Amino acid sequence: MADPSTSPPLTRASVIAAHALIRPFVHHTPTITNATLSGMASGAVPLPSLPSSSTSSLGEGKAKPKMRLWFKCENLQRVGAFKARGAFHAVERLKREPGWEANGGREKGVVTHSSGNHAQALALAARESRIPAHIVMPSISAAPKIAATRGYGARVVFSGSTSVEREAVTADVIAATGARLVPPYDHPDIVLGQGTLGLEMQDDVRASMLSPSSPSASASGGGGSKGGPTWVPATEPGVPSTKLERVRAGARPALDAILAPCGGGGMLSGVALSCEGTGTRVYGCEPAFAGADDAGRGYEAGVRVERVSSLTIADGLRTPVGVVPWGIIYERRLVAGFHAVTEDQIRGAMRLVYERLKMVVEPSAVVGLAVALYDEGFRAMVEREAGEEGWDVGIVFSGGNVSLDALGGLFGEGK
Amino acid sequence: MADPSTSPPLTRASVIAAHALIRPFVHHTPTITNATLSGMASGAVPLPSLPSSSTSSLGEGKAKPKMRLWFKCENLQRVGAFKARGAFHAVERLKREPGWEANGGREKGVVTHSSGNHAQALALAARESRIPAHIVMPSISAAPKIAATRGYGARVVFSGSTSVEREAVTADVIAATGARLVPPYDHPDIVLGQGTLGLEMQDDVRASMLSPSSPSASASGGGGSKGGPTWVPATEPGVPSTKLERVRAGARPALDAILAPCGGGGMLSGVALSCEGTGTRVYGCEPAFAGADDAGRGYEAGVRVERVSSLTIADGLRTPVGVVPWGIIYERRLVAGFHAVTEDQIRGAMRLVYERLKMVVEPSAVVGLAVALYDEGFRAMVEREAGEEGWDVGIVFSGGNVSLDALGGLFGEGK
Repeated sequence: MADPSTSPPLTRASVIAAHALIRPFVHHTPTITNATLSGMASGAVPLPSLPSSSTSSLGEGKAKPKMRLWFKCENLQRVGAFKARGAFHAVERLKREPGWEANGGREKGVVTHSSGNHAQALALAARESRIPAHIVMPSISAAPKIAATRGYGARVVFSGSTSVEREAVTADVIAATGARLVPPYDHPDIVLGQGTLGLEMQDDVRASMLSPSSPSASASGGGGSKGGPTWVPATEPGVPSTKLERVRAGARPALDAILAPCGGGGMLSGVALSCEGTGTRVYGCEPAFAGADDAGRGYEAGVRVERVSSLTIADGLRTPVGVVPWGIIYERRLVAGFHAVTEDQIRGAMRLVYERLKMVVEPSAVVGLAVALYDEGFRAMVEREAGEEGWDVGIVFSGGNVSLDALGGLFGEGK
Repeated sequence: MADPSTSPPLTRASVIAAHALIRPFVHHTPTITNATLSGMASGAVPLPSLPSSSTSSLGEGKAKPKMRLWFKCENLQRVGAFKARGAFHAVERLKREPGWEANGGREKGVVTHSSGNHAQALALAARESRIPAHIVMPSISAAPKIAATRGYGARVVFSGSTSVEREAVTADVIAATGARLVPPYDHPDIVLGQGTLGLEMQDDVRASMLSPSSPSASASGGGGSKGGPTWVPATEPGVPSTKLERVRAGARPALDAILAPCGGGGMLSGVALSCEGTGTRVYGCEPAFAGADDAGRGYEAGVRVERVSSLTIADGLRTPVGVVPWGIIYERRLVAGFHAVTEDQIRGAMRLVYERLKMVVEPSAVVGLAVALYDEGFRAMVEREAGEEGWDVGIVFSGGNVSLDALGGLFGEGK
């Protein structure tokens, strides 16, 4: 991929430029609302109890924040995850690198090691530019993942499953083909590409709030009040007029906060860049299980955690945060803080998304919703800061790639 | 519920009148498209094989129809199923019955026996009109269903599980309270209410085809070509200009056919009414398992089948077709025919909806898609009738009420 030293500066303006580059290739996914889930986050609708009941009820002494939730549906993105954004951006930037084509770059292609969403995203992006993609996958990868990656026209190269083995095979591929490495998150072009979803959220929520048909922006009431799953880009009732006036005047952002999952941190840091200077606070969300909350622990300790070996059900978030994302997240303090949730809380949030929104999301995608519903630290902070006016909270549903078989394993026995 | 003899005539005009009545209370659900699924139906994209492989591959001798699929998302309807339409229509009609209010109808309320979507739909419709709802449910009903029905404010009355036991308890409730019975499908007001989804499909598909931003209606191309799940009401590329011209001139319907699930037949017959005189053919879709294809068998034999005891996974379709629906479906021949699919084909279609559309549907909801993808009789007919121009086929996703636990049971062991 393009030499990082030639990448654009890590700024909001560069995210906007990235958006212009990738727009023809990716979906502008919808940002939706749901009255029931906002009601649950605000204590107005009872929250179903979790198997571990201690955190689930909004009883005495619990925070009672007001939150209006806005869901960015990257599960409806191409390849079923936000990863398409970074991959297309990386390929488009590569194509524009001086000398790349003259030096045979188009024939040499691209390579990555991944068995997940990034593999399929890169395969797709390469195919649409008609350049070869070599994907190094552990030979023990699930057959459907191998088939899906090949389905996008990529060449799959097998390796052992340790990172040392995968990197060795990747080096071999590079030596043999001259293909350029496109890492899954630790590169400025990837970060800038993923950040484009943050821009879309900001635009969509603002437009929705200020739309003449929005119940909150007009006296007419209407659409938002019927309850039930809402799929068309929705208006959210109940934004107080005091806030609306300030949003309209440009004195306040439409979104008060964004909750984004953090694995390698490419998306979280990109979203943070997209919010720089806007007043929207960005929080990272992680699974707590077996140390998968590495970014939060590192943020607390002031040192990036370099190794994670958690087997959390949020399998997209088992990665330590990368160096480039860390610079944005921690060194520049563009992320306001981290929150971690339990496996049961992740399952509980998934259940609500399936049963209320009728939407398929992968476990990693719901950690933000789990924080909004269950994390007392976050909820108490919102109650304190937002007061009666409440906050509009954007939640990134990062992807929807989960097989029905895997769902069976997660929920099959009444878990 | 209103005396059937006072119901409007069973015509398309009455469906339009029903739509005007219920519009304030129900969602106009989206009609969406998906290039991959249309490609699979048309043999342009490989169809994943089923466990029983004989019917899954599009090999030699198989039909090769051209189909563009349009999905009506009633899983996104209030209470998660089309049943909200019939229930609201029944209640609105009841409120307009001369003497109903004067005779204490508002205090006596409504009653039904159901443990499924109709129970919740009636509970909701009654609550919004502030009249009591008594729901008779077998005492062995799943706890979440009981809780959900109570959640809508209904009074749940338990009975045994046989139909004789349920009817006896219902009669007791009527004797004790004077509540009016609202049956789940066998009543003109229910049929007319459910039929409103057919009107919306016709309108939406026509508007989408003729929209200036539609790739098929303009030379600009664009949005429809990126693939991946599409959620915003979508444009479908590739409608031939020969067809578009005739649709624009009103000489041909936008939808050539609609595939609708058939359980009690209330929705199928309502949709058939909504298409009367339009040229859109309506087909009923059923599970074949253990005799659940009662409507198709009756249609063939010329006699309504009155008893069904199938335990098909499509649990909403275990009911025999009702008398009122039968008059529309068979006696007036407003349904063009029936097709039945296997349990594996239902599972296969569900898998595609989850993995490609990222949408939660219940097994009953996908029998229409299963027919389009797997039923050789239907496919050969479309190939013959539609030729090179192809057909636009509307598919009713009837509901999305399936628990994650039930999904685990359906797919947990790689079924």
